Amino acid sequence: MKRILIHGGTLVTADEVARLDLLIEDERILALGTDLPREGTEVVEAEGKLILPGGVDPHTHLNLPMFNTVSSDDHYTGLKAAAFGGTTTVLDFIPQEAGPLQDSIDAWMAKAAPIAAVDFGLHMNITSLSPAVLEQMGDLPGQGLTTVKVFTAYNGRLRLQDGEIFQVMRRAAELGMLTMLHAENGDVIEILTAEALAAGHTEPEWHAHTRPAWGAAESVLRAIALAEQAEAPLYVVHLNTAGGLDQIRYGRARGVAVMAETCPPYLFFTEDDLRRPDGAKWICSPPMRSAADNRALWSGLADGSIQTLGTDHCPFFYDGTQPIEYEGVPIAIPGKELGAGDFTMIPNGLPGVGDRLPVMFTYGVGQGRITLNQFVALTSTHPAKIFGLYPKKGSLLPGADADIVIWDPARRLKYGVAHAQHRTDYNLYEGWDLVGYPEKVYLRGHLIVDREEWLGKPGMGRFVARRTGGEIL
Amino acid sequence: MKRILIHGGTLVTADEVARLDLLIEDERILALGTDLPREGTEVVEAEGKLILPGGVDPHTHLNLPMFNTVSSDDHYTGLKAAAFGGTTTVLDFIPQEAGPLQDSIDAWMAKAAPIAAVDFGLHMNITSLSPAVLEQMGDLPGQGLTTVKVFTAYNGRLRLQDGEIFQVMRRAAELGMLTMLHAENGDVIEILTAEALAAGHTEPEWHAHTRPAWGAAESVLRAIALAEQAEAPLYVVHLNTAGGLDQIRYGRARGVAVMAETCPPYLFFTEDDLRRPDGAKWICSPPMRSAADNRALWSGLADGSIQTLGTDHCPFFYDGTQPIEYEGVPIAIPGKELGAGDFTMIPNGLPGVGDRLPVMFTYGVGQGRITLNQFVALTSTHPAKIFGLYPKKGSLLPGADADIVIWDPARRLKYGVAHAQHRTDYNLYEGWDLVGYPEKVYLRGHLIVDREEWLGKPGMGRFVARRTGGEIL
Amino acid sequence: MKRILIHGGTLVTADEVARLDLLIEDERILALGTDLPREGTEVVEAEGKLILPGGVDPHTHLNLPMFNTVSSDDHYTGLKAAAFGGTTTVLDFIPQEAGPLQDSIDAWMAKAAPIAAVDFGLHMNITSLSPAVLEQMGDLPGQGLTTVKVFTAYNGRLRLQDGEIFQVMRRAAELGMLTMLHAENGDVIEILTAEALAAGHTEPEWHAHTRPAWGAAESVLRAIALAEQAEAPLYVVHLNTAGGLDQIRYGRARGVAVMAETCPPYLFFTEDDLRRPDGAKWICSPPMRSAADNRALWSGLADGSIQTLGTDHCPFFYDGTQPIEYEGVPIAIPGKELGAGDFTMIPNGLPGVGDRLPVMFTYGVGQGRITLNQFVALTSTHPAKIFGLYPKKGSLLPGADADIVIWDPARRLKYGVAHAQHRTDYNLYEGWDLVGYPEKVYLRGHLIVDREEWLGKPGMGRFVARRTGGEIL
Amino acid sequence: MKRILIHGGTLVTADEVARLDLLIEDERILALGTDLPREGTEVVEAEGKLILPGGVDPHTHLNLPMFNTVSSDDHYTGLKAAAFGGTTTVLDFIPQEAGPLQDSIDAWMAKAAPIAAVDFGLHMNITSLSPAVLEQMGDLPGQGLTTVKVFTAYNGRLRLQDGEIFQVMRRAAELGMLTMLHAENGDVIEILTAEALAAGHTEPEWHAHTRPAWGAAESVLRAIALAEQAEAPLYVVHLNTAGGLDQIRYGRARGVAVMAETCPPYLFFTEDDLRRPDGAKWICSPPMRSAADNRALWSGLADGSIQTLGTDHCPFFYDGTQPIEYEGVPIAIPGKELGAGDFTMIPNGLPGVGDRLPVMFTYGVGQGRITLNQFVALTSTHPAKIFGLYPKKGSLLPGADADIVIWDPARRLKYGVAHAQHRTDYNLYEGWDLVGYPEKVYLRGHLIVDREEWLGKPGMGRFVARRTGGEIL
Repeated sequence: MKRILIHGGTLVTADEVARLDLLIEDERILALGTDLPREGTEVVEAEGKLILPGGVDPHTHLNLPMFNTVSSDDHYTGLKAAAFGGTTTVLDFIPQEAGPLQDSIDAWMAKAAPIAAVDFGLHMNITSLSPAVLEQMGDLPGQGLTTVKVFTAYNGRLRLQDGEIFQVMRRAAELGMLTMLHAENGDVIEILTAEALAAGHTEPEWHAHTRPAWGAAESVLRAIALAEQAEAPLYVVHLNTAGGLDQIRYGRARGVAVMAETCPPYLFFTEDDLRRPDGAKWICSPPMRSAADNRALWSGLADGSIQTLGTDHCPFFYDGTQPIEYEGVPIAIPGKELGAGDFTMIPNGLPGVGDRLPVMFTYGVGQGRITLNQFVALTSTHPAKIFGLYPKKGSLLPGADADIVIWDPARRLKYGVAHAQHRTDYNLYEGWDLVGYPEKVYLRGHLIVDREEWLGKPGMGRFVARRTGGEIL
Repeated sequence: MKRILIHGGTLVTADEVARLDLLIEDERILALGTDLPREGTEVVEAEGKLILPGGVDPHTHLNLPMFNTVSSDDHYTGLKAAAFGGTTTVLDFIPQEAGPLQDSIDAWMAKAAPIAAVDFGLHMNITSLSPAVLEQMGDLPGQGLTTVKVFTAYNGRLRLQDGEIFQVMRRAAELGMLTMLHAENGDVIEILTAEALAAGHTEPEWHAHTRPAWGAAESVLRAIALAEQAEAPLYVVHLNTAGGLDQIRYGRARGVAVMAETCPPYLFFTEDDLRRPDGAKWICSPPMRSAADNRALWSGLADGSIQTLGTDHCPFFYDGTQPIEYEGVPIAIPGKELGAGDFTMIPNGLPGVGDRLPVMFTYGVGQGRITLNQFVALTSTHPAKIFGLYPKKGSLLPGADADIVIWDPARRLKYGVAHAQHRTDYNLYEGWDLVGYPEKVYLRGHLIVDREEWLGKPGMGRFVARRTGGEIL
Repeated sequence: MKRILIHGGTLVTADEVARLDLLIEDERILALGTDLPREGTEVVEAEGKLILPGGVDPHTHLNLPMFNTVSSDDHYTGLKAAAFGGTTTVLDFIPQEAGPLQDSIDAWMAKAAPIAAVDFGLHMNITSLSPAVLEQMGDLPGQGLTTVKVFTAYNGRLRLQDGEIFQVMRRAAELGMLTMLHAENGDVIEILTAEALAAGHTEPEWHAHTRPAWGAAESVLRAIALAEQAEAPLYVVHLNTAGGLDQIRYGRARGVAVMAETCPPYLFFTEDDLRRPDGAKWICSPPMRSAADNRALWSGLADGSIQTLGTDHCPFFYDGTQPIEYEGVPIAIPGKELGAGDFTMIPNGLPGVGDRLPVMFTYGVGQGRITLNQFVALTSTHPAKIFGLYPKKGSLLPGADADIVIWDPARRLKYGVAHAQHRTDYNLYEGWDLVGYPEKVYLRGHLIVDREEWLGKPGMGRFVARRTGGEIL
Repeated sequence: MKRILIHGGTLVTADEVARLDLLIEDERILALGTDLPREGTEVVEAEGKLILPGGVDPHTHLNLPMFNTVSSDDHYTGLKAAAFGGTTTVLDFIPQEAGPLQDSIDAWMAKAAPIAAVDFGLHMNITSLSPAVLEQMGDLPGQGLTTVKVFTAYNGRLRLQDGEIFQVMRRAAELGMLTMLHAENGDVIEILTAEALAAGHTEPEWHAHTRPAWGAAESVLRAIALAEQAEAPLYVVHLNTAGGLDQIRYGRARGVAVMAETCPPYLFFTEDDLRRPDGAKWICSPPMRSAADNRALWSGLADGSIQTLGTDHCPFFYDGTQPIEYEGVPIAIPGKELGAGDFTMIPNGLPGVGDRLPVMFTYGVGQGRITLNQFVALTSTHPAKIFGLYPKKGSLLPGADADIVIWDPARRLKYGVAHAQHRTDYNLYEGWDLVGYPEKVYLRGHLIVDREEWLGKPGMGRFVARRTGGEIL
């Protein structure tokens, strides 16, 4: 039995800010108190520091095969990068392969579990529906998989038809599960993309031109309507448009159980970034939009219309022909260069799992756009509650896992690829000034990050079985 | 050369109310003036009467095969009923049959043209898309068919996929044509209907339960998004929900070229009417909704968010086993009774082509919900302009066809099946008090209705070739 | 008896575009027709030209004392400028002076009537309320004054309290009159202005800073609420903000009888223009706002939420120390230079009465933002209808006054002070390219403008008594 | 030093639900933990019970002189009733009397402090503004008074002009204080009331007719605009209309720091209740509205647009001529009967301080309209945070005051005046079924309510000095 007393820090939760001692026993928080006794404990002084529940990232794609390559972070490197950024639980998506869902799950678990660097849970994509699949959904909650994701885009690959989505939603609701949705209009994208290519448009900006913002807005309302009719809750992933937010607000004000996630890049970048010479770095789906969309999304975070910040972490090398050194070893994985002559061949995805907390602390809290409580709520407590991880994760109450970040609110640094720990060769926030950064990160009571030092190990992260009946926020 | 001088009446157009003489020469209006000379004219005294442009009904289904029967008005009886209600031009829909579009057109023309009682134009349904059909759309404008209609509902029968709708819209825009849309979510309807039947729900009210209002709202926004992306104008037929109207307003305020039609029954009736013992009388698609929806639609007419009033006239007998007498002959056509044990077998559709002007005059103008100019705009000028009939139709300016209604604003009557001229055995407004009714109706200068007397003949109505580039209102 | 036949032109009204002959007899339109007989008429060939009803400007301030000077156009020069721009009726505001309303009216009539160059009506400002004034309002309709204007701004000068506005609205409604409203928050303006001056801020841009846009938005809703409670119609003058438009739409969708006017400058200019070295040229109240507000107002014109275009014409010299030549005589009137050291001393107001039609034709119709019918509706028919001038004005129907503009849609010119006929030394649209311009202007059958030639005379314009019960659009 | 261990209960906070022990030392919470040691503690078993932070009621009027009587609960009886209902901190309003603010504060403190039954804070009404008052506002924060309330209604009594409100807001913002607002349009109310009386309308329902809902909506937007311009936060008290909520949402989505409170009666009752024979029981300002308003307010609680539930507790006897027995003594205080012949003489106000938690638990949480966390947030944590009481109040974290409610979620009772502890002769929820009720209530570690037993004493409640810089939620 090991006890750690974090003393003198300021606890920050989704609703509280309080100067309190926190006592860890083994892997869990044992007590909170004022002047807890020090005897028998390892005392960590945290004067002037913030004590946060470890971040929960609801949205990553690690080691994901795509376009003849694979996202460049696996469940070790990606989750290690998460830890450096203050995130100790990550929810990763399982692609649905042919065959029973269980096969897809087993395969993904086999990739992830042995090497996971922090705790992780899994969402199940449903990209091909049949009565058998609906039936098999019933096996997921018992394994702690309580969420499914569907797509209104990616015709012929990932998309379900509206009626299929409706059936998934009803089945999920029946099982106490939550349906997540990627909202774009697949039909229009398919047509515009074919036409753009036929017209010889190959540049990255055509990725945005061929995925119009209005399609994102309408598909949000479409899914809201389906959810209302299915009497099911809905979670819209990576909201990227003002129009989509308008519809989220419309649905919520009419009593529909709809929630939304956005990702930091959508708050800062626009289609203009795709027109840069290195525009491929910003290619993901849905795409960056306009400054007006950025502003709208900030307002949605502030007024509670958007409940979570995820990352959709799915990194690729910008130049996968040039090795970088990672843990002392040179590595190169084919990446954005695959689409040099064809924007549709640019692997879709961005690094971000480690950027989330530092970037949002400086540019969200520090600039007065969100409060400190909202920062914790959006990055940890809300994802934990919505996804059935709470109160094990996302909480600093006794009984919770001792996933704790000691955050130095005063630390200044110039951010970028040299700092971020993603296994890729670029960072979207290269050269940005940050104020505030993780100092120590504990995973279930184990110190895994101490400033720049990595103390974790592959496999230290555990799979977290999640509850059904997650909260509607 | 024949001249008729309508003297002393008050002309009402979409924007004007003026006491003026109107001179007809043969089939057209020759002049408007104050104290036009009477010599050589047949003078019709219209003191105390309103002079309206003949109504234009943008939406009917005459002699339409459905569910092993046929809508009970053909192009003679239905258009005659229209005339009695003050409507002199009707736009009827051509179902798309297998084979080239031209075959469908030719077949429909063969049914309609020989017997039409008033002027008519045709819309082309596109319910099965192929490159050939897209190509064939190019043949329509030259024949005066400048509108196509698509459906987001009726899976497996009439529905197109979103991408197909998008392609139709773009092709239409390229040709200067307008795309009309039936907005419901076909997938959800398909599922709910199958389930309702499986659960033994056979009553008419299940027609409404299985076609949820949220599906109408989302599909309106979906079509707006498709139209915006296609850079094409859009006309939403038979808007029946407050939610759909919210989205129409949303699109219009953002500059999208979207227009909407509603039909009188959606202003007066609700799902409750479907629960009446004779609820089948109110079965049409989309269904009647709530009193709150009624109110919202009235507000949309008043503030200009809804531009037209159509009827979606598609009558069936309530009891098609009991003959009624029509033009002295007993006739019975299988009707609503077909669905006595299964709501999905109730022929979908309502009588209304003759009710539109009288009902809206009394309950719209008379109750101060719309102005006299709006009455004319909604029932005549706007449909004429939107559908490329203007200024031939929908106008009282010289040069226009002399389609004229002399309206007695003071005439009182108790309305119902005894008065309406539809070839069916019931009327939705049975027993309603009306104030204001057509007195004389001219079709291209020919007096076809003189109070209760029918002076028209089968075949007197002509096909009207319509222009491309109809107006966006 | 004199007859003029305008032959071969294309008539444009609020709802019609038709190639028609138009016959004038003396001062009125006698007939419209196709191929009207030419005998006994003076034939004016108008092939390729548009025939418009003369413009109706609902909002001017001529010869208005302000800040120790006077607006630089009087009822001759200003109305002459109107005529050159295609406007033949102008509604000017009577300031309320101490004493009975009748005294104010008589004084203003004495200034205006003898010299008026085109027809004019008068609105009565109510800026000081008492039971006597409420009583005296009863004398206005009989004199053809059927509108009153109130202000929520200009504390201590023009402003009425909410309760007073409510009383004016109810009294007006009782009398069939319409209440017009200048919507800003006077209290906040008063405070911010005093503070800005105390802080030594003297530049024109402080005019905008001290009149915040939110005050315009809230006072629109405030007035809508007052009107709804008073069961009275409301007309918001010179709407200049997106927020105000949001509230106009909010009120209209809830059935409130509220209408709005905007003025061309609010569609083109922003606060940035106030920061120009000659920023004082753009000083009026309410001020120019942002590009986002410009865009919103265009959408309001297009979707019908805004019903009229006025000018709020109230010109001042930019440099009133330098005479200009006007009708061959040098004239200088103190102007914007009065506020060189103090933005609150800059006379508030802009020239515009002559710019309205040409600028809106090129930049509204020509750029596809409004249709030709909307152009006529916004600039002529709607103001005529709302203000009880219709069908005498704003119409081309027989019986209407023969106020007619023959418009050359193809004429190109570079606009500016050299072209505009306002009696001032600058024009807001200096150097703008125009396509389309008035060719001939008739006032009640009299040709008063023939391209660059002025054929009118002081006193030729008549006072127009207006009806009560103007329309709600 | 006394220690109490609450063992085995389920802690509920604004964001957490967790089975945890809670250790109290003297007046504060010392620790939270799993299986905290029992030695040296009084153990309270709470198996199956909820442990809530004591309720914080942000809005009461105790012992308030009005209409020649006084609200019938004083700072002993009212706060005792609060305690029985689970509320341990109450914020009461100080009326501004003539003279320095300090005099008003001292007088109110003299009434409240000696007898307070639970902790209390004070808001300062600003109903008469002068430079001196603005200056004196600077003395409030030092005394723990960090909020001021202003009114847009009650002309001639409580109302400030817009400019005065703007000045108060700016001064408050400068001092880190929050401005609270009663939003109705005083001018219209003044006029309609006088007219209703003059017309002989004396019944309670005229209270509602003379205070139109549109006035509440517009004054919310007006205050939002003032706040935005003042760069000050705003808290709208007792929101009662859908229209007001529309504007709250409008402001929040545009980044304005505006928050809103509603009160339980506005969620359940309508103007129809005022038409009951005992309608006077429901008379308060603003009045009950419609069922549509009820529904809208529930949606605002659910989607976070409304942040707090207050009571506006201001009870009066329904029949103040009939004594009731209170603590064994008969007492009668003139009440609603004062307005028997004149609705304007009915004392304005409702009992409610004790009803809030029980009613909202059963009809909010129990009926699935709000979550358990929202229940705590709305009734305790949010008011504590917004009003600068947090983390002393509204929290269960160590260091917080040990204000704790042990809530029995299973207890069933039929509610009404026999149960509620208000010193009045009626209860709005008479006969309502409740499920869930307070079992034990601790005030700073002292057990003051044990089921039906009162263990508190006058004067046991302390004045709570509040912090400036309360949170914006």
